[in-house]
Amino acid sequence: MYVRDTIAAISTPVGEGGIGIIRVSGPASQQIAQNIFRAKGNGGLKSHRFSYGTVVHPATGDVLDETMLVYMKAPNSYTREDVVEIQCHGGTLVVSRILSLVIEAGARLAQPGEFTKRAFLNGRIDLVQAEAIMDVISSRTEASLSLAQHQREGLLSQRISAIREAMLYALAYVEALIDFPEEDIDVAVERDVQGRVAPALAELQGLIDGFEEGKVLRDGVSVVLAGRPNVGKSSLLNTLLKEKRAIVTAVPGTTRDVIEEVVNLNGLPVKLLDTAGIRHSEDQVEQEGVRLSLERIPRADLVLFVVDSSAPFTDDDRVILDAIGSKSCIVVRNKSDLTSHCELPEGVTSPVVAISTLTGEGVPELRAAIHRTFVHGKAVDSREYVAVSHARHRDALIKAQRSLQRFVENLAAGVNMELLPIDLRDALDAVGEVTGATTADDVLDRIFSSFCIGK
Amino acid sequence: MYVRDTIAAISTPVGEGGIGIIRVSGPASQQIAQNIFRAKGNGGLKSHRFSYGTVVHPATGDVLDETMLVYMKAPNSYTREDVVEIQCHGGTLVVSRILSLVIEAGARLAQPGEFTKRAFLNGRIDLVQAEAIMDVISSRTEASLSLAQHQREGLLSQRISAIREAMLYALAYVEALIDFPEEDIDVAVERDVQGRVAPALAELQGLIDGFEEGKVLRDGVSVVLAGRPNVGKSSLLNTLLKEKRAIVTAVPGTTRDVIEEVVNLNGLPVKLLDTAGIRHSEDQVEQEGVRLSLERIPRADLVLFVVDSSAPFTDDDRVILDAIGSKSCIVVRNKSDLTSHCELPEGVTSPVVAISTLTGEGVPELRAAIHRTFVHGKAVDSREYVAVSHARHRDALIKAQRSLQRFVENLAAGVNMELLPIDLRDALDAVGEVTGATTADDVLDRIFSSFCIGK
Repeated sequence: MYVRDTIAAISTPVGEGGIGIIRVSGPASQQIAQNIFRAKGNGGLKSHRFSYGTVVHPATGDVLDETMLVYMKAPNSYTREDVVEIQCHGGTLVVSRILSLVIEAGARLAQPGEFTKRAFLNGRIDLVQAEAIMDVISSRTEASLSLAQHQREGLLSQRISAIREAMLYALAYVEALIDFPEEDIDVAVERDVQGRVAPALAELQGLIDGFEEGKVLRDGVSVVLAGRPNVGKSSLLNTLLKEKRAIVTAVPGTTRDVIEEVVNLNGLPVKLLDTAGIRHSEDQVEQEGVRLSLERIPRADLVLFVVDSSAPFTDDDRVILDAIGSKSCIVVRNKSDLTSHCELPEGVTSPVVAISTLTGEGVPELRAAIHRTFVHGKAVDSREYVAVSHARHRDALIKAQRSLQRFVENLAAGVNMELLPIDLRDALDAVGEVTGATTADDVLDRIFSSFCIGK
Repeated sequence: MYVRDTIAAISTPVGEGGIGIIRVSGPASQQIAQNIFRAKGNGGLKSHRFSYGTVVHPATGDVLDETMLVYMKAPNSYTREDVVEIQCHGGTLVVSRILSLVIEAGARLAQPGEFTKRAFLNGRIDLVQAEAIMDVISSRTEASLSLAQHQREGLLSQRISAIREAMLYALAYVEALIDFPEEDIDVAVERDVQGRVAPALAELQGLIDGFEEGKVLRDGVSVVLAGRPNVGKSSLLNTLLKEKRAIVTAVPGTTRDVIEEVVNLNGLPVKLLDTAGIRHSEDQVEQEGVRLSLERIPRADLVLFVVDSSAPFTDDDRVILDAIGSKSCIVVRNKSDLTSHCELPEGVTSPVVAISTLTGEGVPELRAAIHRTFVHGKAVDSREYVAVSHARHRDALIKAQRSLQRFVENLAAGVNMELLPIDLRDALDAVGEVTGATTADDVLDRIFSSFCIGK
């Protein structure tokens, strides 16, 4: 463990609440607690004892607040350093004042994510787990939270670790080959190496393939409703917005923007972007409405092409269909409660779902169809499901895969023996970028600076 | 202690942060913790031990999050009941999910302030202290926080308790008089009673007199800048807004509205209400600007009447001055850097402060003058300063004072002996309304419902 200075920050969300927490980590934590905390009752600071008392300014004797305080002796803490947490009444000012006193007493203000960074640097968690902690905090649906928790628990790290083991085994073998060239190549051992590297390659491919799904679960997708005016886009939008809002409504105070823009669609965070604009476009002349739809299509992960099934397919419909082109699309035949008069042109290969926003018919099927567009396996629901969900991880795994593939080819060809360890080391480095073993400092800084303060 | 059900709520502010806390209080707390928490390491739930582990859904085995958990055995807790606090990663969804699980396991959702209400009902704190806890949380300046902390610590309760003791002593005396009318009135004892009641009356008067100051510290004051256009109202507003914003800027994320509307003026929370409107009025024609100023004057606690000292006093100035009438006012002679051409009309008795928003001259004096208008004693800064700051308390103390005064008069007159205990009991009841001993249930409900959730 490196010796570091002592950091402090407010670890609870900004605002008024019942409880506020000031977290302190580093070698001076215990000393700071002793300077500013007066425990009611007996005994000094015992590790992991939750003590009642007051925070008192040591110079003036002013009582800043009645608090609970817990001291966690290294290494049994979040950061693996000595940690002190002070719980006070959750007012904005009272929390700030106690933080100021802690700073005055010798700590410095922590940077965003600095506690978690220390947990990583001190080896308690790897980088995948560290990043997953922030994903846990920002998750908005059950599925994204579940994925983040599995990553935080180390399920992804374990799979990467198995790949790394295979690479290390191969590296030991080729290094022996180079060190003792006079010895015959043991065919059985080489087969053993190939027998370990092949599943590692397959596993890499699997993780890379799973990225799209993982990314979708983590970041959500943007869905645009396209269609000419009066086909029922606004009604469909309202229908989608009204359903499955349990998460949002369970938390009073979440901003209206979020409520209106992110829907939880069978566990998938769906951003209905620029919906206000779409609504607004209804007030415009027909051509303007079509133009706005067209503008949004390129930015969407999925287009819901809404047509009025009770009316013939028009030239405007045709224009929108052409704009969609080969983009991922679901054709939504709205007004299924009326007699059908709409014949889709030939050549439309996108899935078609008939709905009625009036009766609600077909809406669950549409939700399922949207979900199916992005999430393929049933595994997402399982307790073991894990996927790569950060582009940074995917990119590094692709690098690892390429290097490992080169190694396999060179090994099979029996040429360029000197390149074998280089390829393997490149592959190991690439995998290490994911877990943090070989991640550059500036990349680390960038990752942790996106964390919230006090984490 | 009453037997109650088990309640639970999120006790940290709404939003994303490093740590979220779910608080549980009541007889089932320990059982709920045992059902859903798997501690890493040895031992069961020991009181006040801060344990690391995971929250696990007992039916599905799903890990909801890694958490710290502390169980506080009654009566050594915030509510004096068995309390469990679960600290998890501070995401909106993860906190909600753990709360849901706690509810599923047998708790019910706590109402706002219900934990503090239990602390009060279980006798850990009186009602004055309970109300002060919410004041601690909502305090925006050092002075208001300090007052709230002193009330929370019981400084006000102690003074009220001394008044109550005098009343009880007098009551014991008059009840003895009525029970044993044949005995002679002991003049020495009666003098003793008077000698105790007189300071109690004086103390009541002191507390009632201190209310205005206490209220001002707690709730702040509204100050309106009145004046015709181009005298420098906007510049003065900006000057006042720019200074002393330390509290607000120390907390990133505080809404801009609050930053712009509440200034901390030497510890006094000053609401510059409708400032946007005032600014906007600068764009209007002259008469409109004057009209807007006039509208705001009646709603203000103090008017800053801003005049241009470099120009003659105009008819518009006169209209504003008349509108201010006998309202609390400070005349601000702006542009003191220019040659003075403004003569105030005779009969202006308000304090006058010359300032220059250009050079900053006079601004500290103006701030002090505003402060002095509301806060008189120097005691506010002292460690023992305490005042009544809730209108409810003031009103009850006035009732107590009137009853006690009647008692003193009747005792001195030597008539209506039967009324003496009635007056004293009225006085005791009135004091009890402050501390909560005799507060009606609907009043209690109203008080605690203004608290935040989880407190």
